[in-house]
This record gives sequence, C-alpha cells and structure tokens, in this order.
Amino acid sequence: MIYTFLGPEGTFTEAALLKVPGSRDAVRIPSSSVNEALDRVRRGEADAAMVPIENSVEGGVTATLDAISTGPELRIVREELVPITFVLVARPGTSLAEVKRVFTHGHAWAQCRAWAASNIPTAEYVPASSTAAGAIALLEDGSLPGDAAICGPIVADEHPELNVLAADIGDNPGAVTRFILVSRPAGLPPRTGADKTTVAVPLPEDHPGALMEILWQFASRGVNLSRIESRPTGEYLGHYFFSIDAEGHARDARVADALAGLHRISPGTRFLGSYSRADAVEPTVGPINADEAFDASRAWVSGILGD
Amino acid sequence: MIYTFLGPEGTFTEAALLKVPGSRDAVRIPSSSVNEALDRVRRGEADAAMVPIENSVEGGVTATLDAISTGPELRIVREELVPITFVLVARPGTSLAEVKRVFTHGHAWAQCRAWAASNIPTAEYVPASSTAAGAIALLEDGSLPGDAAICGPIVADEHPELNVLAADIGDNPGAVTRFILVSRPAGLPPRTGADKTTVAVPLPEDHPGALMEILWQFASRGVNLSRIESRPTGEYLGHYFFSIDAEGHARDARVADALAGLHRISPGTRFLGSYSRADAVEPTVGPINADEAFDASRAWVSGILGD
Amino acid sequence: MIYTFLGPEGTFTEAALLKVPGSRDAVRIPSSSVNEALDRVRRGEADAAMVPIENSVEGGVTATLDAISTGPELRIVREELVPITFVLVARPGTSLAEVKRVFTHGHAWAQCRAWAASNIPTAEYVPASSTAAGAIALLEDGSLPGDAAICGPIVADEHPELNVLAADIGDNPGAVTRFILVSRPAGLPPRTGADKTTVAVPLPEDHPGALMEILWQFASRGVNLSRIESRPTGEYLGHYFFSIDAEGHARDARVADALAGLHRISPGTRFLGSYSRADAVEPTVGPINADEAFDASRAWVSGILGD
Amino acid sequence: MIYTFLGPEGTFTEAALLKVPGSRDAVRIPSSSVNEALDRVRRGEADAAMVPIENSVEGGVTATLDAISTGPELRIVREELVPITFVLVARPGTSLAEVKRVFTHGHAWAQCRAWAASNIPTAEYVPASSTAAGAIALLEDGSLPGDAAICGPIVADEHPELNVLAADIGDNPGAVTRFILVSRPAGLPPRTGADKTTVAVPLPEDHPGALMEILWQFASRGVNLSRIESRPTGEYLGHYFFSIDAEGHARDARVADALAGLHRISPGTRFLGSYSRADAVEPTVGPINADEAFDASRAWVSGILGD
Repeated sequence: MIYTFLGPEGTFTEAALLKVPGSRDAVRIPSSSVNEALDRVRRGEADAAMVPIENSVEGGVTATLDAISTGPELRIVREELVPITFVLVARPGTSLAEVKRVFTHGHAWAQCRAWAASNIPTAEYVPASSTAAGAIALLEDGSLPGDAAICGPIVADEHPELNVLAADIGDNPGAVTRFILVSRPAGLPPRTGADKTTVAVPLPEDHPGALMEILWQFASRGVNLSRIESRPTGEYLGHYFFSIDAEGHARDARVADALAGLHRISPGTRFLGSYSRADAVEPTVGPINADEAFDASRAWVSGILGD
Repeated sequence: MIYTFLGPEGTFTEAALLKVPGSRDAVRIPSSSVNEALDRVRRGEADAAMVPIENSVEGGVTATLDAISTGPELRIVREELVPITFVLVARPGTSLAEVKRVFTHGHAWAQCRAWAASNIPTAEYVPASSTAAGAIALLEDGSLPGDAAICGPIVADEHPELNVLAADIGDNPGAVTRFILVSRPAGLPPRTGADKTTVAVPLPEDHPGALMEILWQFASRGVNLSRIESRPTGEYLGHYFFSIDAEGHARDARVADALAGLHRISPGTRFLGSYSRADAVEPTVGPINADEAFDASRAWVSGILGD
Repeated sequence: MIYTFLGPEGTFTEAALLKVPGSRDAVRIPSSSVNEALDRVRRGEADAAMVPIENSVEGGVTATLDAISTGPELRIVREELVPITFVLVARPGTSLAEVKRVFTHGHAWAQCRAWAASNIPTAEYVPASSTAAGAIALLEDGSLPGDAAICGPIVADEHPELNVLAADIGDNPGAVTRFILVSRPAGLPPRTGADKTTVAVPLPEDHPGALMEILWQFASRGVNLSRIESRPTGEYLGHYFFSIDAEGHARDARVADALAGLHRISPGTRFLGSYSRADAVEPTVGPINADEAFDASRAWVSGILGD
Repeated sequence: MIYTFLGPEGTFTEAALLKVPGSRDAVRIPSSSVNEALDRVRRGEADAAMVPIENSVEGGVTATLDAISTGPELRIVREELVPITFVLVARPGTSLAEVKRVFTHGHAWAQCRAWAASNIPTAEYVPASSTAAGAIALLEDGSLPGDAAICGPIVADEHPELNVLAADIGDNPGAVTRFILVSRPAGLPPRTGADKTTVAVPLPEDHPGALMEILWQFASRGVNLSRIESRPTGEYLGHYFFSIDAEGHARDARVADALAGLHRISPGTRFLGSYSRADAVEPTVGPINADEAFDASRAWVSGILGD
C-alpha cells in the first residue's frame, strides 16, 4: 500500500494516517496540499490519501470539501478523529517571556488566540504553510532569537532539539479534527451498523423550498445528518452545493432510498462514500425506517403491479 | 358479464352503469345497498358493482368509502361521472300548488332544498330509501292526492304515468356524481396517461405531523390529490383513515414510489385501484417526477451498491 | 334562555342538550333539521342550538359541517359527548321473531346492521326522518303488526306503551356521538386549559402542497388536530374546504398564531369557536409552543424594530 | 466618522470601504484581523468596520461569520460587492520566467492555482498574512531575485516601483467578494424594498427535522435565502449554528414573522442586521406574503379575541 497525506511529516494528518492498521509499515508520501494528495490518488501514484475534513473549532476544511466534490470521482473509505492539542516550541535559549514572533498555520493560530493574548501578548504571528513547517523553520538558518512556533506534540517529540515552552495551549480543550481516507472508487466498505455516508448535493434551484426538499429526503426516512455545509460552486454568489454527512450506510435501505430521492431532485448529486464511524455510535432506527419496512413496502407494490 | 348496482332501477347509479360499454346487453342486478352490491362481487355472484363514491354537492358517499376500505379486498377498475338533475313528479291530477308531501332520498332533498323552499314552501319531506323508490311509491296503493316525489329524469322517462311538475330543480346546476365500478382483485387496468389511483390510509399515530407525512409521500413526488376524505375507523373518536384519490397510475414510477412510502409509514394502507379518469385530463409531470428520473436514480444507486 | 335542537323530542340530541346546566328549566324547541335549528339561532328565535357534529362510527355529520361553515357566522360554545345505544321497540303483541319492518333513521340502521342481520335477517328497513319519529309512528294509525323501530333508550323510557324487544343492539358498544351547542358570535368562552378550536378552511389552490401548508400552520406550533374532514364546496368536484378541530383555545398564543397563518394563506378561513373539551383532557405543550415563548419572540422582534 | 477595515492598505477590503459615501474623507484605520476590526467597533474606537463575509469562489469567510455571531452584539448596516482580480508583481529585473517564489494570502493562491500551474509551474508558494503584505515585502530588505507576489491591482497602482508581470490571473473571471460594514447596534437602516437580513441561528437539537424547521420559518413566508452556512459552535463535532442571509428587511411583515418564529424555536437566534442589497434586486412577493396579508390576518385574529 502506498499512502499519501497532507504533509509535511509531523502534522496531525500524519497522526491520523498512523491510526490506520498497517500504515506504519506502508509507504507514506507527504503532499504539499489537499489537491496534490487527492491528485496522487487519482493518478494512481498512491492508493489512498489522508486529509482533514472538519475541525470542531474551525469547521469544515473547505479545500477538502471542494476537492472531493469536483474532478474525477473519489471515495471516502474511512474516518479518523484526532484530538488537537498544541505546544509552543523554540530553540534552546529562548524563554516564554522572550518570544517575539510565532510561526504557525493560520488555523492553529486561530485556535490558540486566547492563550497567546494572555501569555505572549506582544508576540507577532507569522503565517507558515503548516504547523510542522513553522516549527522546522526554527532549526534553519535565518531563524532569530525570540522566534517560536505553535505545532502539535508529535513534532516536538520528533525534534528533541526544540524546547517545549508551553503545552496544551489550545483555547478549546476538547478540540478534535476529523480526517478522511480517500481512495479511487471501488467496492463499498462493509456495513458495520455504525456507519456514515457522505454526499455532495448541488442546490437544484434557488427557491425557498429547494434546500428543504433535499433535507426532507433524509428526514422522511429517519436519517440523521451529522454535518451539513454549504459551499459555493464558484459560478456566482448564491450558487451552492451542500456537503452532507448522514448516519448510515448506502446498504441500509433507508439510506439507499434517500440517495435515490436526492439524485432524482438533484441529478448532479455525488456519492462520496459509506464507511464506519470512528466513534462507533449506532443510530436508533424506528420500525418504519428499518430495512424490513422498506422490503415489505416494495414487495407490496410489486404485488400490486403483478411483477 | 354480470353487473350489480345500487338500485333500484332508474337511479343515477344505473345510468352510470349503462355508460359502461357492453353493460346494456349484460345481466344487471339491482342491490338494495352499497354493502349488498359489494358483497355480491366478493361472493362471485356478480363480476362488478357500480356504486356512487362522491357527489359534488354532498361530498363522499360514506357507505362506499367505508365498504371498499374494509373486508375482503376489492378493486376500482373504472369511474363514471353523471350530471345530477332532478325533477318533481306526481300522479296526474296533482299540480305544483297542490303538493303537500315530497318523497325522496335525503341526499336528493338536500340538493333541492332551496328550490323547494321557494316553490313548495309548505310541502313536507318524507324520506325514501332511494329517489326511484320514492317516485314508484306514488303509483302504489296508499298514495294520497298532494303526494309528489323528487327523482332523476330517468325514472320519469320510464314511468310515463307520472307527470313532471318541474324539471331541473337542483340547487346546483353543475352538480355531478362520481361512480366507481368495483371488481375482485385482478390485473391492473392499463395505464392511459390520464389515470387515477385510490388508496385508504390509516392515520398511523395521532401526532401533529402524521397526516403531513402521508401527504408528503404524494407532494414530494409531484402527485396531486383530487380527493381526500377522513373517515372514522369506528374504534374511537379521533381515529381515522384517509380515503385518497391521487393523479396517476400505479405503473407510473412516481405513484409506485409514493405507494411504497405510504405502506412503509402506514403498513395498513390499502390499494383500491388504478383506472383511467373519466375526464381524460392528463396531469403535468415535471422532469424530476418522470419515470426517467426514477429509473435514472435507481440505476445510479445500483451502481453505487455494485448490484 | 331559549334552546333549539335537532328534534324531535327523545333523540340523542335532546339528551345532549339536557346535559347543559340550566337547560332542563329553559325553553327547548325541537327543529326538524340542522339547518332549521341553526337558522332559528341566526334569526334570534333561539339563543343556542344543539346539533350533532360527529359520530365515532358514521363520521362527520355533513349537514352540520356544511351549515355552520356557510351563511351568517355562528359560534360553537360548548360540546357534549353522548354514548349511543339502541333498542328495538314494538307495540305490545309483536315479538322479536315477528318483526317484518324496522323504521329508523339511516344512521341508526347503519349502526345496528350486523345485529339485524343476525337477529332479524328478514326484516325490511324503512327510512324515518329520525329515530324518535320512527318509534312514535308505531303508535299512530296505519301501523301494522310486525312493525318495529330502532331508537334510543330515552324514547322507550318516555313511551311505556312501547315494548323493548332488544336492548344494546348497536354493533359498536363504544359508539359515541359528539354534539355542539351553537350560538351567534359573542365573547369567547373562557380558556380552561382543556379546550378545542374549530375552523373551516377553504383549500386555497389545487396543488400538491396546499393541504400540507394548512396542516403545517398547526404542526409547526405543536397544535394537534383531533378531527379533520374534507367537505365539497359544492362548486365542482375536487374543490374542498376542510373542517378542523384543533387542540387549544384562540387565547393560547400557539393557536392564535396558527389562526393568523391560516387566514393569511386562505383568507376565507372561518373561525367557528373555542370551547372547553367535554373530556377535559389537557394537551401537552412543549416549551417552544408555550405562551411565554411566543411572548418572548414578539418582544425580541419589537426590540429589533425599535417599537 | 472613524472607519476600520481588514488591512493593510491596498487590500480588496479597503477598496470596498472606499465605495462607502464619505469614506474617502473619513479616518480609516487598518486592522490586522477581522477580530481586531470588530473589537475596535465594540470598544468604540471606530464607528464601523468593513470586513469580508463571502467570496464567490472560496465561500464564507469563517473568521467573520464566527466573530459577528458571538461576543457583544454588532449590526451589519451595509454590504458592498467587489470584483476580485489578481496581478502578479515583482521588483524590476525579475521576469515571469524567473519567478521562483510567490508570496500571497492563501485565499488568493487558491484562486490563482490553475493559472500558476500553467504559467509558473515550478514556483513555490509562500504564505503571507494578506495579499498586500506579500507584495510590500518584496520592497523590503531580504527579498531575493525571483520573488514575486499575487495581489490586487490596487496595490500595484499604489506601488509603481513594482512591475506587473501578469494581470487578470484569477481562475474565475467573475469572482466577486462580498464585504459588510458593521457597527454597534442602533436604529435599523431604512427599508428600501431591496434588502437583506442576516441572522445566526443555533441548531436547537440534533434531530432529523431541526434544520428543516428553521428553514421552514423562511419558506412558509415566501422568504428566499441567499446564503446559508453551517458553522461549528466549537463545543463538539456536529454542534452547529447557521449563518443565514434572507431576502427582505425586518420591517417587512414576512421577515418579522419569520424572525419571531426563529426565536421561538431557537431562542439563541441572533439578529445581525437588515440593510439594502448591493445589487438592488427586489424580491417577488406573492399576495399571501405581503404586508397587507399579515396585517389582515392579525386584525382578523384580534377581532376573534375581542381585543
């Protein structure tokens, strides 16, 4: 197996990838962007890509939502949840009081803003392309005394030459990021009973009820949504598609029926995968939404039609 | 073919039956009640029964709605619309000004009430078991001077010994009654493109949204309803089933899909037939509700499931 | 107080009227039809009319539903529930085995049909204008041996010269009829916490969602419906109004808000009264549908508008 | 008037601010982040802040959506639309073929990705805190030959010492960004007939219908939505609020009624302003959603209640 992931090494994305059984012994190629990671999969240079899709603080990762919803089809085959914690690191010789500049990714900075305002109020934020890149830059020529970086603990572990000035500096202690493993379309992962299905649904028309009709396809079959995000199609302001995670597997009759309904009212609907939930929570399914109810209703109609 | 109909001879129901091709040369047995007519079909003593189901003034014929929705299954295979006009008849020697009592069926009396109030204000209403029975009773012993009857023109035509004192006395000139031809379950009548489907749907639960969920099964597939009536199940006040006529044929994908949805949320749903509309009006079906859209959505889901 | 009721004396309607406090000492005028009773109220000849509106076996009383929904406005101010039981009576000298003809109202005959089929299978049904009228006719000249009548126990009690051949002959032991007391519009009866509100709502347009929009006005405010019936407007087949009983009082904010919504989408909506429930059952109202939630939301909007 | 805006000078945000009448002669303070800009308004250091809220390619500006929806209340009083075009600049002496590094903001890089892949495929992206900052850095010590920046034309205009190597390099020619002018709560801007209302609505509960109930508050009053975005509350994955732009003004009865409904089902709903639309498009309002219909329905209910 060849994996790629949103790099560089030492990011939370690599941590997510390492939770996949067998990944430690597989080839793991860092990619410099979500698009690059997914394109590697599309071109067959990698079998699967691990990329972030959602953060409990920052929300959806728009680069991922957009990239999986356009271009050649891909499939989500797995999800991983990684708790997000941050550390402030610097080279030996720089104390917390001496920090003048903080290199990190914008999302990380956003999640440590309150801590920084209280503890290093005069420090200047310098954007880096990733948390790991910001930290590794401290070790390069050109780094100045007073430079520090916010990164994940994994980077500090791998680089003992960096001092941890402060740990657990994220403003939301329960912050978690959700990652998805994406491959080319192939057979569906097996139904486990605690599954999730992801779709991208273009809003068919701009009228007051269009989004309701989409949502009703789920609600009328008792299918809960665990995530819904609007994304611009890029064509014009107000033209959207919706990226939706629903409870259940395409092999659940209620989900398959909802998918058929979605495709009917919005034929550009894209199926992005059914896969087991990282939290293993099984949904409650009432009797009218159970497979048996769907099977019975179809058999009843077939009887009427004389099929 | 052996037909039965809600008799006696001379009623609008017989007029409806005579509109069925071939019925004039077939055996036609009058029944004394809707239940008797339907039971003759159930027992195989008749091939089909013509009974009234709906009147544009009086509403649903509850005896029919209830009788076809319970007991051994029956199927509506045809509908007929008959304009309802009334005449006032009496034996020779009784003028309009002399009318003291009016024999007729309660529904007919209700539909001529305004005319009667203006033209024979002092006349007393005497209920009869049918309009024809009321008229024929005038010819029997015991009939008194001043007795009259309200009936359909067909009865007057067949009984020239009755004088027509006034014609077209119905309060609603456009009044029409709809009749259905009912047989034992067999193959569905062919889809004509201008069809109607009738179902009886028990309200699954008494919560604010239960009826909406039923209606949504139709609305979400663009299926118009041409009639909806609540009927008590007889168990307790507030426990209903709904008798519904929907546009379209069970062989229309949108109708079949709606039927499946109904059965799922209310498993006691009873299919009462798909048959061509008497008015031959074809519904407007948008592209998302066309057979092609349903076929395409199912093919798409099958592709996802690898079926 | 002057009351009128659907007569004659001895019917279940009079029994319902006698349950109204003070009615035993008031003037009670029988009317020969629902329309006559209501017109007496409209003309000021009576202060209130008691008429049947719904039967647990036969369904809505269409004459009442139609009469209160058209013409000069009236208001329902009270409801009564009366258990319906039937007896078979005859003049002394006629035994059960000798019964040849049964005089009664069509609704009563419908509710005793199974008993009659088992116990007096050869007896002929003769329609009467009311159950009481059928029984009283037995005492008149022209009554023949073998004549019997189905009526309420109250008639037998008042006419000891009639023999009760069989009691409790109704096919549904729990049958109950609901009656309403109707007056000219005046102040609303007080809110008791266990109330009912009745409206007549013309279906604004014949499209798949019109009825849903009406129902949603109730459902979206947590207002349960205890009765819904479609009635033809009489103009043409398929043109309806809906007669609806909803839980709650017009002074409940959720009901007042629903009424405003109904009037907006169907300006012909007619308010027919708020009155206490005969069964005194109080509805469960969630916090988002309580008066406090409506008051708070209006205050919030007023604050925004700077009113 | 003192304005602040998401700086530095030369960004599209300043271009948006300069479209506000009178702003050219007012004090204009750049802020280094959306939060800083809004906090200046909250503290009274500025009267209003111009910040981006939505981009036709990149979607919602999450920093803005989150910052206006939490903390002390603010109000949107105006919107501006600015077409987004990009230029590639460098110091004299660097030609297009020689570009090795491109400094710019991540959003700008994302919008020029296809152009860059075709025209400067080997160039490395270096994140900058804004497009203007990336361009100005070229003029500082430490800039190397081969360095370039992607920025808006306004920056190139103000810095003639930078060469424009390529213009109109955005991948979406019609790209536009929407900016909002935010102030402390005060009286509402007047209703113009072509208005927009923005709200933040916490999802009250995680059940299949919760979002539908929110949307229905708009749809049932004929209020179109022009933008809807889910944002995490930050508490846990799957806990959202919805940021919504609806057509119309809080002084439109249909909008006020929808706001009341929203507040009732989600009391944490925050009103973020009603303001005239930059595109001046007036919505189509059917008769049942016009102010007159709301006024009439309330008057009708008041009449019933005897108020």
